[in-house]
Amino acid sequence: MDFSPSPRAADLTERVRAFLAEEVEPAEPQYHADLAEARARGEAWIPLPLIEELKAKARERGLWNLFLPKEHAGEYAARFGTDGGEGLTNVDYAPIAELTGRSAIAPLVLNCNAPDTGNMEVLLRYGSEEQKRDWLEPLLDGRIRSAFTMTEPGVASSDATTMEATAVVDGDEVVINGRKWWSTGVGHPDCKIFIFMGLTDPDADRHRRHSMVLVPRDTPGVKIERLLDTMGIYDEPLGHGEVSFTDVRVPAANIISGPGEAFAIAQGRLGPGRVHHCMRLIGLAEMALELACKRGLERTAFGKPIINLGGNRERIADARIAIDSARLLVLNAAWKLDVGGPANALSEVSQIKVAVPNMAQQVIDLAMQIHGGGGLSSDFPLAAAWTAARSLRLADGPDEVHRGVVARIELGKHGAKR
Amino acid sequence: MDFSPSPRAADLTERVRAFLAEEVEPAEPQYHADLAEARARGEAWIPLPLIEELKAKARERGLWNLFLPKEHAGEYAARFGTDGGEGLTNVDYAPIAELTGRSAIAPLVLNCNAPDTGNMEVLLRYGSEEQKRDWLEPLLDGRIRSAFTMTEPGVASSDATTMEATAVVDGDEVVINGRKWWSTGVGHPDCKIFIFMGLTDPDADRHRRHSMVLVPRDTPGVKIERLLDTMGIYDEPLGHGEVSFTDVRVPAANIISGPGEAFAIAQGRLGPGRVHHCMRLIGLAEMALELACKRGLERTAFGKPIINLGGNRERIADARIAIDSARLLVLNAAWKLDVGGPANALSEVSQIKVAVPNMAQQVIDLAMQIHGGGGLSSDFPLAAAWTAARSLRLADGPDEVHRGVVARIELGKHGAKR
Amino acid sequence: MDFSPSPRAADLTERVRAFLAEEVEPAEPQYHADLAEARARGEAWIPLPLIEELKAKARERGLWNLFLPKEHAGEYAARFGTDGGEGLTNVDYAPIAELTGRSAIAPLVLNCNAPDTGNMEVLLRYGSEEQKRDWLEPLLDGRIRSAFTMTEPGVASSDATTMEATAVVDGDEVVINGRKWWSTGVGHPDCKIFIFMGLTDPDADRHRRHSMVLVPRDTPGVKIERLLDTMGIYDEPLGHGEVSFTDVRVPAANIISGPGEAFAIAQGRLGPGRVHHCMRLIGLAEMALELACKRGLERTAFGKPIINLGGNRERIADARIAIDSARLLVLNAAWKLDVGGPANALSEVSQIKVAVPNMAQQVIDLAMQIHGGGGLSSDFPLAAAWTAARSLRLADGPDEVHRGVVARIELGKHGAKR
Amino acid sequence: MDFSPSPRAADLTERVRAFLAEEVEPAEPQYHADLAEARARGEAWIPLPLIEELKAKARERGLWNLFLPKEHAGEYAARFGTDGGEGLTNVDYAPIAELTGRSAIAPLVLNCNAPDTGNMEVLLRYGSEEQKRDWLEPLLDGRIRSAFTMTEPGVASSDATTMEATAVVDGDEVVINGRKWWSTGVGHPDCKIFIFMGLTDPDADRHRRHSMVLVPRDTPGVKIERLLDTMGIYDEPLGHGEVSFTDVRVPAANIISGPGEAFAIAQGRLGPGRVHHCMRLIGLAEMALELACKRGLERTAFGKPIINLGGNRERIADARIAIDSARLLVLNAAWKLDVGGPANALSEVSQIKVAVPNMAQQVIDLAMQIHGGGGLSSDFPLAAAWTAARSLRLADGPDEVHRGVVARIELGKHGAKR
Repeated sequence: MDFSPSPRAADLTERVRAFLAEEVEPAEPQYHADLAEARARGEAWIPLPLIEELKAKARERGLWNLFLPKEHAGEYAARFGTDGGEGLTNVDYAPIAELTGRSAIAPLVLNCNAPDTGNMEVLLRYGSEEQKRDWLEPLLDGRIRSAFTMTEPGVASSDATTMEATAVVDGDEVVINGRKWWSTGVGHPDCKIFIFMGLTDPDADRHRRHSMVLVPRDTPGVKIERLLDTMGIYDEPLGHGEVSFTDVRVPAANIISGPGEAFAIAQGRLGPGRVHHCMRLIGLAEMALELACKRGLERTAFGKPIINLGGNRERIADARIAIDSARLLVLNAAWKLDVGGPANALSEVSQIKVAVPNMAQQVIDLAMQIHGGGGLSSDFPLAAAWTAARSLRLADGPDEVHRGVVARIELGKHGAKR
Repeated sequence: MDFSPSPRAADLTERVRAFLAEEVEPAEPQYHADLAEARARGEAWIPLPLIEELKAKARERGLWNLFLPKEHAGEYAARFGTDGGEGLTNVDYAPIAELTGRSAIAPLVLNCNAPDTGNMEVLLRYGSEEQKRDWLEPLLDGRIRSAFTMTEPGVASSDATTMEATAVVDGDEVVINGRKWWSTGVGHPDCKIFIFMGLTDPDADRHRRHSMVLVPRDTPGVKIERLLDTMGIYDEPLGHGEVSFTDVRVPAANIISGPGEAFAIAQGRLGPGRVHHCMRLIGLAEMALELACKRGLERTAFGKPIINLGGNRERIADARIAIDSARLLVLNAAWKLDVGGPANALSEVSQIKVAVPNMAQQVIDLAMQIHGGGGLSSDFPLAAAWTAARSLRLADGPDEVHRGVVARIELGKHGAKR
Repeated sequence: MDFSPSPRAADLTERVRAFLAEEVEPAEPQYHADLAEARARGEAWIPLPLIEELKAKARERGLWNLFLPKEHAGEYAARFGTDGGEGLTNVDYAPIAELTGRSAIAPLVLNCNAPDTGNMEVLLRYGSEEQKRDWLEPLLDGRIRSAFTMTEPGVASSDATTMEATAVVDGDEVVINGRKWWSTGVGHPDCKIFIFMGLTDPDADRHRRHSMVLVPRDTPGVKIERLLDTMGIYDEPLGHGEVSFTDVRVPAANIISGPGEAFAIAQGRLGPGRVHHCMRLIGLAEMALELACKRGLERTAFGKPIINLGGNRERIADARIAIDSARLLVLNAAWKLDVGGPANALSEVSQIKVAVPNMAQQVIDLAMQIHGGGGLSSDFPLAAAWTAARSLRLADGPDEVHRGVVARIELGKHGAKR
Repeated sequence: MDFSPSPRAADLTERVRAFLAEEVEPAEPQYHADLAEARARGEAWIPLPLIEELKAKARERGLWNLFLPKEHAGEYAARFGTDGGEGLTNVDYAPIAELTGRSAIAPLVLNCNAPDTGNMEVLLRYGSEEQKRDWLEPLLDGRIRSAFTMTEPGVASSDATTMEATAVVDGDEVVINGRKWWSTGVGHPDCKIFIFMGLTDPDADRHRRHSMVLVPRDTPGVKIERLLDTMGIYDEPLGHGEVSFTDVRVPAANIISGPGEAFAIAQGRLGPGRVHHCMRLIGLAEMALELACKRGLERTAFGKPIINLGGNRERIADARIAIDSARLLVLNAAWKLDVGGPANALSEVSQIKVAVPNMAQQVIDLAMQIHGGGGLSSDFPLAAAWTAARSLRLADGPDEVHRGVVARIELGKHGAKR
């Protein structure tokens, strides 16, 4: 159980820390001001040039595509600018993801943003040479963005097998129909490619019925119906969309890894993706705790810093304990993934998917409370942080489903069939 | 300990229920659609005519100003349209407030909206004849709205005695300076009068230093700097404002109940106001629980209604228990206020101020979770409801301050000085 | 919703309070000392004479059998010494039960101790004239005690229909076989009669299969196998026993209300019984909170009373809120029982059965913590109190079963079949 | 951050696992039966021969004194039978301590029982050659036992500087007076030596006033007043005593590390001791979770294994997450101790001291609930386990004090003085 990053990863972590401190953090106030202005003009969905400038700087420093996994990165890390020319293990990448999680823009700037990272991993591991050339390379290059269209408005997303959208093979084409929502990233004008998940063969085994298909955004029949908010927040310019697919036809070669492979791919995609999400939330929780400490020490009431009133210090202690526990749990899941792959870390990945967003939600709520009314407003990053943590209790599977996985594995140790 | 409403109150409650079902609920989808459109046009701060139409209907049915307290309503209940011509006790009003709390617009429609109700109570109990004529009557008439400017951005609002804004008597005028925020209602064009709270005599006893002053919105030196959001929500067209006061001069006759009386007034104002807030949150929590039950029964996953999966039914039970406990606690506080006034209900009012928003936040969070991603979006009223509950853990005193009051009273029973 | 006791009940409550203060509390240290000595001598199962003396005094003051329910007490309240000669409603009895709950011996002293009260209610409501004469009257007289043998070691007690013990009618006899445990009271030498619950007709409807049978303790084939402890506590001299029944034969006339009626009777028995348990736990929690306040004010650390350290005052506030909420919830269940009987209060009784023991467990845990190591020892009544609260999360149906009832009723409002 | 044990430690862990499975577990039923019988005879304080037999077997296998810390073990590991002849790091020892924590007797059998381990560490690190010869060696040999007398009945133990017992230097003697309680181990007839902590110089700096003195149990003036229970449990034959010291005189050479050094020593003693306690509690929680899974799968109600009812599976998942988080947190504290000593792990040790006992208490409570009434009785090891976890929320500093340490360090990062 060794959670130490390699020397190269430790070096990259320090360089990311420096880059964030020198370039990203100083730019954030401007970014938020520009975004607010753009919103007021109704132009929030047009990406701000600031991000592209920062992306160029990150790439120049070799802090680019750091998410690329050691075992699959192959030639790509070298070709697309990751310093050192190879990918990182999950344990290596963890502290980097945590650092980027503190910032609203860092993941974008380092080309390490969900859902693109997950989509790139899918192509890396399961894509054909053509699929890699056409879509993976421009994504690694930061020229285009992508979306993953899986969740549907009409069915409970906790059970993916209930999905109703279809991807029917018709000769050398696939015909796609259905409606998806919470498709993150579709608001961005550079979002050129969707990975669509749909039902191909209703008669196959339960986990062999669905396929993943690459659908270029401009294919006829694809329509972005609207962009959804979470707690009033639209996450421009990426956004979360509701998308309809009406008799959309793409070549059968766009199916990733063949018909019926969607669940097999999802299994591989979601493990590291969930670890990344959780790592970033750890960073967010750390940021919230820092703000809470600072505010609590600065403001006074009844003649004392408010941090010294009532149970506030105990809450700070509980938050520290909760964050440190959660980080260790994430590192453990990362390490289990590293040493044995997704099948080795089923329980551990579900454990963090339950534990970390709940922890972050609670720590951020505490920070809000210490900030008073302002803590709920856009004056502080806490409302957005809370929303991110809360959303993650649903995205990539609700808490309840992941608790189910952990329980199934635990009871399996004692002979339970399921 | 008798929590039964009077026969007249029971009748009014049923009539409010019918009015909401017949007029308000059917109008709400239109209201939300109109508001969304107005927002898109940048005109969300212009009140929608729908509200005025519904106000007229409510008044016609005598369901108007029902918040008026029995012991202070005097002639006003009769003059301003409350059916039966007299005010209600807190116990009587409780189930009515709960019903209105389920709806985003019902409180406005019945002229029972915070902060106007609290401001009207202040004028009713402490206002001079001129103050009543000039400001209370148009408020009761629903012609104008009002704001209460107390919280300040620069100091911890948990300790009101740290307030830095000033209200200095200068001959027959008061000179007002300072900056306030979270002044609810100032976004509304009909908001014509502010009750300003500021420091008058720094050398007086700690709770005799501050005054409340009536400041007409259009007085020179009053400036609404901006409108604040909570979790991305602006609560248009009332809104929560940041307001600066620069050498604002009003007649000394605008001081309510004389210089140095602000805390005495606040004590009287906040008791019933907190009870009303809590009652409305009970309604909100009931609404959320209903939505959770319905959604949980409708949607299926793994071959079952999702309500039957994992711990969901236990969560429904816990929510029912939590709501019923909280309602009883609120009724108890209302009853204590009714039989002995604010001094008799200090602990009870603080108890509900802690217990109810926390309960509501949790029940609404559960309802969100059962709704999946949609539960966080504007497709459902849950995000707004959560924000309302969360805000109330800060507004009118943070949880921690109210726990402090409850503890002080409890320990006082065993001889503790404070 | 009127939770006020009748004037007679209010008077009895005050007289109970006075009796406890004058006679019972002063005797408790002696009682505990005598019991400890008896334990050391291995004679803890021999009742101490002190209790009989106090019983006589209670009876003399008319504070006897106060549990007798208004609607079923009939002649018995008058015949067996309850002052005023009639029974009390649940709302009337609530504050009395709360007072007795504070004391380890008061319920016994007032002849209001479980399980005898529940057993007496069964006989009162469902017993034949002979059964009343033979068993109810001596119980009301305080001459004998009784036990209720229902839970079995071999099956999950959460589902009573899985019970395996049998009560087979054989001509004019009933033949009883099986093993029961957690039969409270069987340790007491005066415990002369058991109400046994067993399977009579496996082919009947699920809730018509079982019968309740009166089994005198000295019937051949009845054997008390051992006495069980909860957290090391044996609750001498009543105790909780494991009892075997081997070919035990009693007259068929000993069946209460006829074969197959056990569940119908249990339904009626358990409602008020659960309310009484919860009322007493409220008293226990109040006692714990008082001890916590006193200890927290007396002891100092780091130069302050420990109650002023960290989050302790907030915990006191939370405990006060929790107790007051719980009491109101119990009063509400009592009132619902009073106005409409058990069928009217199904959810409410299950609500308190969940809420109150959990609340008490938590408040007592807090009191323990404030007492330091001593709080866990026999030097304070907290360990016994905690054990009582914890046990009640299982006795009379575990939390989970009661949450199930509340959920079923809640979801039933929205059309769910079960 | 490397939590992997050394190969030697991994081997020892497996050998401890085998020894427990082959020798200790099979002996436990007999041990508990013998103890129950001894209790019934009033002879529970006489150690059972079984333990001595098992000790001999453990020693034979080299599984003896495994607690000995690598950096201080010196010659002792080799001389007193630890296989391999050297001590273990905290990370190495962690999984061994976890295994022993599952058993009520394993720590004793392996000579790794508190408080002896802590006392031996004190002597190892701070003892003079004579002190080591006279007391450390027989302790390492398992011939005698020891006690640590620090907590006092008269003052809050959360603030050790309030201690009132005295250790006054008088020429070449120390005169000891005062009363201690919760002195673990004094019930055992082999307990021959006490480490006494008392006030030597009231005028010194706050943390330089107290001394630790070796007081042989048979010194005149030492009196064991009584043995205390926690939740009815006496932990025979070690026990927790209340001990009075009246004009007890021992040579000044019995002071450990010189007058005024008590806090410096305590600091060094308590770090690893707390880690050991927490490690053992992890084992206890694992044991409880296993029992919960097994019972939940075996028992049925309403036609299903009870583990599949309501929220039970979610509780199993939450328990697994909680245990794994807690174990990682303990390993982290152990690792910080290993790499930088106590000063490097102040926050981490306090973190686990808060997190682990609370976690264990909750997991064990869940296991109790799944066992029904039996879970609270002596039929299962859960009541004793719960008591152990609950006690640890007070022993070695209450939760609140440790939260205070964590908060102080956290706020110190932001410039807070304390």
